[in-house]
Amino acid sequence: MSSYNNTARFSEARRVAIFGGTHGNEMSGVTLVNLWMKNSAEIKRKGVEAVPFITNPKAVEKCTRYVDTDLNRAFTPENLSAPGGDDLPYEVQRAQEINRIFGPKGSPEAYDVIFDLHNTTSNMGCTLILESSKDHFNLQMMNYIKVGDLKMHVKAQPQGVLRSNIFEAMRVILKHALDFIELFNEGVEFPPCTVEVFRVLERIDYPRDANGNIIAMVHPNLQDCDWEPLNPGDPMFQTFDGKTIHYQGSGTVYPTFINEAAYYEKQQAFITTRRETLVASAIIKA
Amino acid sequence: MSSYNNTARFSEARRVAIFGGTHGNEMSGVTLVNLWMKNSAEIKRKGVEAVPFITNPKAVEKCTRYVDTDLNRAFTPENLSAPGGDDLPYEVQRAQEINRIFGPKGSPEAYDVIFDLHNTTSNMGCTLILESSKDHFNLQMMNYIKVGDLKMHVKAQPQGVLRSNIFEAMRVILKHALDFIELFNEGVEFPPCTVEVFRVLERIDYPRDANGNIIAMVHPNLQDCDWEPLNPGDPMFQTFDGKTIHYQGSGTVYPTFINEAAYYEKQQAFITTRRETLVASAIIKA
Repeated sequence: MSSYNNTARFSEARRVAIFGGTHGNEMSGVTLVNLWMKNSAEIKRKGVEAVPFITNPKAVEKCTRYVDTDLNRAFTPENLSAPGGDDLPYEVQRAQEINRIFGPKGSPEAYDVIFDLHNTTSNMGCTLILESSKDHFNLQMMNYIKVGDLKMHVKAQPQGVLRSNIFEAMRVILKHALDFIELFNEGVEFPPCTVEVFRVLERIDYPRDANGNIIAMVHPNLQDCDWEPLNPGDPMFQTFDGKTIHYQGSGTVYPTFINEAAYYEKQQAFITTRRETLVASAIIKA
Repeated sequence: MSSYNNTARFSEARRVAIFGGTHGNEMSGVTLVNLWMKNSAEIKRKGVEAVPFITNPKAVEKCTRYVDTDLNRAFTPENLSAPGGDDLPYEVQRAQEINRIFGPKGSPEAYDVIFDLHNTTSNMGCTLILESSKDHFNLQMMNYIKVGDLKMHVKAQPQGVLRSNIFEAMRVILKHALDFIELFNEGVEFPPCTVEVFRVLERIDYPRDANGNIIAMVHPNLQDCDWEPLNPGDPMFQTFDGKTIHYQGSGTVYPTFINEAAYYEKQQAFITTRRETLVASAIIKA
């Protein structure tokens, strides 16, 4: 990126990858990517090579999150450079292979944009996750997707289930995202904008006994209330013997990933976030 | 059972088993049974021995439905009498062991009542499943549980997730069921009653292509509408290219187990049922 008169300049985004099945039991992405691998008409855009790709085919086949280890946590520098070949955990091998095809991560040969499609059992609606709050290209894309009328009400989706409303919502997000990339590549300038985001603060575990066993559930007042304010003193957990545990933080937070099935093993009942407004500068093709 | 003046007489129900974890990722039963194994005060009733039991501990540990094969389909005469010991699939060995402890199935030594606790990703609310429409003891127990104010609104529960409202609803059902057994054992006569039930008719698979791949999802108009009428001509599936497939049956049915995660592998999108009113005769202890 370079900047001129406060307008950030980025290279064209010619090569775009669309990943499904990074978690093999998250069915919307698996189904969309399989569909587009058979017929890519829907993801074709002028001057954009969009490649649909199943990242964890063994987990997809078993309809499980992963086989040996979570692929979504496997793209570490250590893993990507680890020797060992077939002796490595399946997902580490897979991360290396994906890095060979679509990377190397951070190199000039790497793909320009990667969409990684996920589902959650939390009541989060359509969620776009960014790694950086300073990436003006992605912030502009987020803004474009939101402006693109994404008011659909979607609910949580259990693992191994395909719900039509969530499937269609994901499809619409990808449509807008690819439209944005096409317009950008054609030289359209996107004016400065603000984007409302939630920044991750803290991971909150379930209450546990001395042996590490969970002794409480997400409180019914908090269940399904992703993105809504949680204030000091609000109910947070309910113990199996009916006691309420209240949030003890010093200020209002916005919980999300509340009661996500896959996070029990990660010792996470939910994640707290704070609301922020980010400013994206104008962007145009370099 | 014997009958006198239209009052059916049953032996006391002294020995009651409460099974959790028959599917290892259905968390309400797993959690309740684990709780009661630590402290059984809640399930103690006069003259009743209530035994909480985790039926598939390996699947519970892995938080998966099963390890080798579905335990809930493993209690067949062939499996229960199969030789082979350690060479048998894990769940077949387990079925044999459970049959030794709580059976033998159909024998006089078998436990009097077994509660097997499950969850579903379908929007079925609290559901009691009976094997026979002519079992007046169980019909009376169903009636007692329903009368016992079970109007809680519960939703679907993803695999691997524990939702407090579903956990509490299951707990209340078990409370009423055990209360009923205690009253029955004490000699209380339960007068004749009628019970509204849904009788299983047919299993409906997802539409598939020539290779067996699913090509449509449960239609948004049908999703979450378990127990509600489905009429000929109503939308049933939505194909990935947006076409609606309508129900073609000859009359109204009541679908359930709509979009249950575990039934994709069983080639079931939902099950149709018809509404019936069953009459339970009066019952009293023999």
